[in-house]
Amino acid sequence: MTYCVGVLLEGGLIMASDSRTNAGVDVIATYRKMTILKKPDQYVITILSAGNLSFTQSTVSLVEEWVGSGDEAHDIAMAKTMYRVARIVGEAMREVERVDGASMAQHNTEFTATLILGGQIKGERPRLFHLYTPGNFIEATADTPFFQSGEIKYGRPVFDRILQYGMPLAQAAKLVLISFDSTMRSNLSVGLPIDLLCYERDSLAVRHLRRLTEGDGYMAGIRKQWGEGLRSVFETIAPPSLDD
Amino acid sequence: MTYCVGVLLEGGLIMASDSRTNAGVDVIATYRKMTILKKPDQYVITILSAGNLSFTQSTVSLVEEWVGSGDEAHDIAMAKTMYRVARIVGEAMREVERVDGASMAQHNTEFTATLILGGQIKGERPRLFHLYTPGNFIEATADTPFFQSGEIKYGRPVFDRILQYGMPLAQAAKLVLISFDSTMRSNLSVGLPIDLLCYERDSLAVRHLRRLTEGDGYMAGIRKQWGEGLRSVFETIAPPSLDD
Repeated sequence: MTYCVGVLLEGGLIMASDSRTNAGVDVIATYRKMTILKKPDQYVITILSAGNLSFTQSTVSLVEEWVGSGDEAHDIAMAKTMYRVARIVGEAMREVERVDGASMAQHNTEFTATLILGGQIKGERPRLFHLYTPGNFIEATADTPFFQSGEIKYGRPVFDRILQYGMPLAQAAKLVLISFDSTMRSNLSVGLPIDLLCYERDSLAVRHLRRLTEGDGYMAGIRKQWGEGLRSVFETIAPPSLDD
Repeated sequence: MTYCVGVLLEGGLIMASDSRTNAGVDVIATYRKMTILKKPDQYVITILSAGNLSFTQSTVSLVEEWVGSGDEAHDIAMAKTMYRVARIVGEAMREVERVDGASMAQHNTEFTATLILGGQIKGERPRLFHLYTPGNFIEATADTPFFQSGEIKYGRPVFDRILQYGMPLAQAAKLVLISFDSTMRSNLSVGLPIDLLCYERDSLAVRHLRRLTEGDGYMAGIRKQWGEGLRSVFETIAPPSLDD
């Protein structure tokens, strides 16, 4: 399984992904699920991948291969808007489906993928998209300014309760890491390291990228402080009457 | 969808279920998913149902019909242990499968059910079981003293972080309601009213049963206090460094 989160903020974007892949509990490996495509002062584009690894890797390889081709329908370096980038990534997904889909179906192998695509192109605001297996996509708005993919449910309640579009980047990064902690605590198939990109609006550069690995002090601190904090909030709430 | 929780405590059992069923978002109805079978000073047995409603209702109807039959393999009133009760409920599930299964398969209708069974029989401790579609089951122990069924993930992190076997009944009831609140906040298909039974060990009677309905003050209070509490814990945690 996988857990990926993209958050759209007034001040930029938070993109985060875990690194665990598994095909059964005894075939577990570490793969980076975050790809960053950038050109200083022109664009920063991030793709987070969930689903069949061969599907998502091939999609990303195609998008990368197409850079510099000069073909507007395929080259993200020529895109004037993130909407056009989403179209290109969706087209790459369809290309992979065309190449591998029939054969995968013959072998009854599940061949699905979802991508979270976030970034900014010079002249436009940062934008965030969620792409589905057929290559179609939706875009995040200020009302619900986040997308999750993979093992999404354990880590969702904290977003529903706390996330706000106007939140500072560092606060949103903290919330994303708490959401990862809740997910990892309840589901073994999501695991460290976590790749975390905090993109500052209009920077058009990758300034804040980190990898939180096993034994990371901040993650350990979150687990302790969040757990203890929840227990203390729990204590302050009066128990219910047991009868109507 | 559905959300049901059973908790095994040193001091008894908490059993809770929501009341929403749906077949598509425009066919939503309220059904009680908690069934209590009892004989004062002899036994209290509770069944919580998730899954196909015709499957679970037929199962419960059969178990009820068999009471008083005097047949040890079917009559829960004759069972000396909760293990035997679980066997009987599992047998009822198989009977429903035998009657309806082939026809349901012909119509490609999903025909699955899971039940949470908790109770106490005179002479034995309270016990808690989780039954699956084939009628097989597992039993809760003090290590992981709870079962959830239906829409389980949103409401699980609070159990992982707070629940303890030795917790007083009223505290565990509060935790169960917080778990329901987290689930209902993130998933529209789980909804009030909630049926809540707090069974005191060795009482062999239903003393604390309540239904929390729309507009219930305690549930509204939990939503507010838990939400605010989480936000204040969130504020006390330092944000991460954005760079390695």
